[in-house]
Amino acid sequence: MSDQKQLAVKSAVDSWNSTIKSANVLFSSLGDEQFAKEVAPGKNRGIYLLGHLTAVNDLLLSLFGLGEQMYPQLNDSFLKKADKAVTDLPSAKELKEYWKNVNAALDKHFAGFTADDWFKKHTSVSEEDFAKEPHRNRLNVLLSRTNHLSYHLGQLALLKS
Amino acid sequence: MSDQKQLAVKSAVDSWNSTIKSANVLFSSLGDEQFAKEVAPGKNRGIYLLGHLTAVNDLLLSLFGLGEQMYPQLNDSFLKKADKAVTDLPSAKELKEYWKNVNAALDKHFAGFTADDWFKKHTSVSEEDFAKEPHRNRLNVLLSRTNHLSYHLGQLALLKS
Repeated sequence: MSDQKQLAVKSAVDSWNSTIKSANVLFSSLGDEQFAKEVAPGKNRGIYLLGHLTAVNDLLLSLFGLGEQMYPQLNDSFLKKADKAVTDLPSAKELKEYWKNVNAALDKHFAGFTADDWFKKHTSVSEEDFAKEPHRNRLNVLLSRTNHLSYHLGQLALLKS
Repeated sequence: MSDQKQLAVKSAVDSWNSTIKSANVLFSSLGDEQFAKEVAPGKNRGIYLLGHLTAVNDLLLSLFGLGEQMYPQLNDSFLKKADKAVTDLPSAKELKEYWKNVNAALDKHFAGFTADDWFKKHTSVSEEDFAKEPHRNRLNVLLSRTNHLSYHLGQLALLKS
């Protein structure tokens, strides 16, 4: 039943979309002051995690071969370096705008994907390796990124009073 | 390509297994004292989240029609009630043992599942509704539970010093 392939893709994309939606609701409820706080004493600040999640989603555009990263200037502060290693970060307000724009771009692409498109290779695996390891496809990356987002959302939710 | 159905199932099950494995590594690194702490000031204690995750996984046995819940005595303290509403909780050591046993039981069942088994309905959806909404299957629940686990793992990781 190829219907089941469609169902599996639907479950994965629905899970991604609903996690993004939960993030949007949470981020809207938090102001600059709350994002400036650490999620727990001595741990990452909210703003760092917001920038980190934005940069990770932004990288999906190139990883899926859909286009260039929109905000490559985030990589150094939010992917290569740890929190507190950089002092001049964008504001939470700016990052929330980037977050929205990156997800809108992804959403536009994902809405046009067929089920088969999700089983195509991502750009960080070679044709040779993909022939041997066909599970290294976009769907697999989407599941992994959904979990990564959930992991940090659990932490960011602690900023709510 | 029905291969793609298999690939999608493999990605979802791999994602579940690797998240359970991360949880095992984290839980082994935390002792009773750390589990007794709140993940952030005024928030849930580690022990509550450990019991909560154990009870949620335990419920998958009945939700997937695989058998009875192993530790129904956890439901009241860890699913129905909030943290700190109950004073006589099992120890973290006991809960870690339950966690291990529940996951071993699930793993035994999952290892025997065919790809088709993942597209069967779970027990909380009626035959009529499932005919109209075939995405309400075991695979969909597995993805949702993997995210839920990741969410709380992000919080529990904050207990590490």
